Amino acid sequence: MSESPVDVLVASTKLSGTWHEPNRLIPGVLFVHGWGSNQGNNLQLARSISRLGCICFTFDLRGHAATSQLHGRVTPEENMADVLAAYDLLAAHEWVDKDAIAVIGSSYGGYLAAILTSLRAVDWLVLRVPALYRDSDWKKAKAKIDRQALNAYRDLYLEPDDNRALRACAKFRGDALIVESELDTVVAHPAVASFAAAFRNAHSLSHRVLDGADHGLTDAHCREAYHRIVSRWMSEMISAAREHQ
Amino acid sequence: MSESPVDVLVASTKLSGTWHEPNRLIPGVLFVHGWGSNQGNNLQLARSISRLGCICFTFDLRGHAATSQLHGRVTPEENMADVLAAYDLLAAHEWVDKDAIAVIGSSYGGYLAAILTSLRAVDWLVLRVPALYRDSDWKKAKAKIDRQALNAYRDLYLEPDDNRALRACAKFRGDALIVESELDTVVAHPAVASFAAAFRNAHSLSHRVLDGADHGLTDAHCREAYHRIVSRWMSEMISAAREHQ
Repeated sequence: MSESPVDVLVASTKLSGTWHEPNRLIPGVLFVHGWGSNQGNNLQLARSISRLGCICFTFDLRGHAATSQLHGRVTPEENMADVLAAYDLLAAHEWVDKDAIAVIGSSYGGYLAAILTSLRAVDWLVLRVPALYRDSDWKKAKAKIDRQALNAYRDLYLEPDDNRALRACAKFRGDALIVESELDTVVAHPAVASFAAAFRNAHSLSHRVLDGADHGLTDAHCREAYHRIVSRWMSEMISAAREHQ
Repeated sequence: MSESPVDVLVASTKLSGTWHEPNRLIPGVLFVHGWGSNQGNNLQLARSISRLGCICFTFDLRGHAATSQLHGRVTPEENMADVLAAYDLLAAHEWVDKDAIAVIGSSYGGYLAAILTSLRAVDWLVLRVPALYRDSDWKKAKAKIDRQALNAYRDLYLEPDDNRALRACAKFRGDALIVESELDTVVAHPAVASFAAAFRNAHSLSHRVLDGADHGLTDAHCREAYHRIVSRWMSEMISAAREHQ
């Protein structure tokens, strides 16, 4: 909040006026979808968040939707480049406040979103069922990463130093929200718990479990519950940022 | 809400992206204080409303604060000119969305705010304990208006055609919120009820009575309740406006 005085001139009189302006005007919000999904799954949430006065940006990762011919050979490294390009487009939007940028990633998109915080300025980070991948798979075709080894990896409680995404979370100084699905059979609880434990330097961390929800939020009520959680959290974050410098 | 597609260029690939932007970005909110008050009484509420992502403007009416030497001779007509000048300053602010302007007036300021809607574009109108004055007093010194005659006038249930401010309310097509004080001994209930009844063409009307409150909201709890009512109502209005055209 800033308050600045200004004169109102009327007839031959000067009246005292005051502008009351929020510190953060228009946040930008980047959505990163999961593997095998596309931006369409984020449209509804993007719509809700834009009603808070944000400019939202969704996009299709390489290997999905129009570029699905690349699905078999795109690597995490390449998809990270996609996320960076999308972030840079959002941050360059003339209306977006560069000091008020949120990233909302699901599953594989959560993994990429976490790493993004080590490469670009991110104020608010939402990770829904964030997935973990071994650092050694970074340049491998995502579709060809050994599934069994990955599942075993996600059964471990890991330290920030064990993984690139967790290292990024440990250095993150903004506000983080993790939303876990109770009945997730894709990303095991230890993986999500490792993310939560990694936020050692965050300004705040909220961790919610959606009861009865599966990994993909196929149930409409669970999806709505997720949207409500994110909308309220974003609303709280934006409101606080508008008051404090 | 508008959704517009855009390409994200990364490596030699074009990814499909979408901007999700709210229709109304930054509302402007003008505060008009009551007779004998000053902009200071609106600072707290202006602060709350600016946290919603609005640019707020408060000012001192002629005859108050720095220009209190004019207190004895300023007329409603002159104070209306003050309100117009303040409105025009707000609407000219580079960030303010001219199609999303709210005016919040208390008592005498509510009277002026109601008339303002017939002279300028106002989308949202908040009238707290709005006062009524006879049209014939328009060019008289406000401080010299006969108090007894005024009290008698405020005991009447009036039709829109009976009064300039009520005529303006009857033509108002935006959203209106009236907040009345249960124990108001300055503006009698029939006057406030006349305002409420006048909003025949409003897009919406909300009428709240603050239990236990006096005219000037001297009780801190009543003041907080008023701030909560206005903040929630504004939040609802802005959110709806951001979605619909």
